[in-house]
Amino acid sequence: MTTTLNDCSVHVIGLGLMGGSLAMALRGKVRRLTADDIQPAVLQAAAGNGVIETGGSAADADIVVLAIPANRIIDIIPTLTVRPGTLVLDLGSTKTRICDQLDRLPENVQAVGGHPMCGLAENGYTNALPTLYAGARFVLCETARTTDQARTLAEALVAAVGAVPLWMDRVRQDYLTALTSHLPHLLSFALMQLAMEVSAEDSALYDLAAGGFDGATRLARTEESMIVGMFSTNAEQLRSVTARLREHLDHLEALLETPALRDELDAIVAARRSYTDRYGERLIS
Amino acid sequence: MTTTLNDCSVHVIGLGLMGGSLAMALRGKVRRLTADDIQPAVLQAAAGNGVIETGGSAADADIVVLAIPANRIIDIIPTLTVRPGTLVLDLGSTKTRICDQLDRLPENVQAVGGHPMCGLAENGYTNALPTLYAGARFVLCETARTTDQARTLAEALVAAVGAVPLWMDRVRQDYLTALTSHLPHLLSFALMQLAMEVSAEDSALYDLAAGGFDGATRLARTEESMIVGMFSTNAEQLRSVTARLREHLDHLEALLETPALRDELDAIVAARRSYTDRYGERLIS
Repeated sequence: MTTTLNDCSVHVIGLGLMGGSLAMALRGKVRRLTADDIQPAVLQAAAGNGVIETGGSAADADIVVLAIPANRIIDIIPTLTVRPGTLVLDLGSTKTRICDQLDRLPENVQAVGGHPMCGLAENGYTNALPTLYAGARFVLCETARTTDQARTLAEALVAAVGAVPLWMDRVRQDYLTALTSHLPHLLSFALMQLAMEVSAEDSALYDLAAGGFDGATRLARTEESMIVGMFSTNAEQLRSVTARLREHLDHLEALLETPALRDELDAIVAARRSYTDRYGERLIS
Repeated sequence: MTTTLNDCSVHVIGLGLMGGSLAMALRGKVRRLTADDIQPAVLQAAAGNGVIETGGSAADADIVVLAIPANRIIDIIPTLTVRPGTLVLDLGSTKTRICDQLDRLPENVQAVGGHPMCGLAENGYTNALPTLYAGARFVLCETARTTDQARTLAEALVAAVGAVPLWMDRVRQDYLTALTSHLPHLLSFALMQLAMEVSAEDSALYDLAAGGFDGATRLARTEESMIVGMFSTNAEQLRSVTARLREHLDHLEALLETPALRDELDAIVAARRSYTDRYGERLIS
């Protein structure tokens, strides 16, 4: 395998928000860039704009990027036909079960698990942006098929799209992103489902909603296939952090009418503001 | 009492985000506009910019607007000194306990409960905007001190700041806003408190956070005094909607690895998108 990114042919499977944005950011930085998508119109649009070349397949690529929902990545890995030396990199939002599959690829194939920490509430190629990855952390997980060459090439691809590689154990990544990403999605969906129920009882409900409600339910606009992928492949860790969230809800509920509420909330506000100071404030849409 | 807004002197108690924005929007539309604030620097700034005139008090105003946290509104109402015929209007985020206090004002005083459905995650006069109320629903609650004249004047004030009056029973408003506003705040605080705990266990946590986490915890940037006011004066209704949210969390958690998850999430996404189509998408910061 070559370890120089611009000598590589790259084949992206799935030109949605993540795959489409990755292709846009890689354009002109690799020898050849091709893609597959279940929607022929998307492939035509990407080829028409010169983002990808037509033709190409996983079987003739140096790097294959899997940019489909996490549950479908798990299904597709055992069916992949690639050349010896090819690097398989996935962008799935959960890593344990995906990397377990990548471990089982033939020994002459290279594989690294990936999870870019960026996105938008609205998915699909029509929302893809060449700058989506700019400045984002991009988690990389070692597999049984990760050589030093694979590491170097994966890091080069991450750098080429403007992101910052962050190597991490698959289980740890899944626990932490269960909190930072999957739980916020679950809460957003649960709150919107409750709102649907209450608005059926009292049609004035949505008239009383404003920016707070809109922000708290914005992730429930995300395309269901993405969410099914993240929820179904990380259910155990998601349940684990949700149980911990319930403890904090219990705790804060118990304080609602007590003088201790003020200090407790104050400490949270201070932590949230210091977080903003450190990382800036990122909008999801 | 006069029922023509531009003949009225208005005194605003509390020049934070809500009171400050209201004053900015009322400027030039009333006979005299004055204010009180616990921070002398805020009063100086507002007077210096010509938003308010100096001097003035509740005792010589035709309309007194209470724009302080809900728990402090409850405390201040019995201590108010106003002229016969004065209209007292509050902007507190909960209405049952406040309106119960307004009911007890002297019979020659007018009173209407108010709750404008707008805001920003960051509070304070420095974030106030003359356009904050533009297009927002503004809940008005009848009290035992609401005459037809008080209704007319309250509606005129709401219209003058660009908002849309929506008369509603106090208990119903508190139940619905427990869902649309107070619960989103509680979830945001609980999630941020969990993140504080987990980041103490694993310092990489925040490196894996992106727009989804930021959006889900943005309300936890809100000044603690506002939140104490809303939580402590609506604790019963907040607990009631939180219990219902837990049922939806239970329900979705039970579906995480089942085929039924897809249709369930799909219905929620459809409802959230149709909500956006109807109301637009409002940012809180």
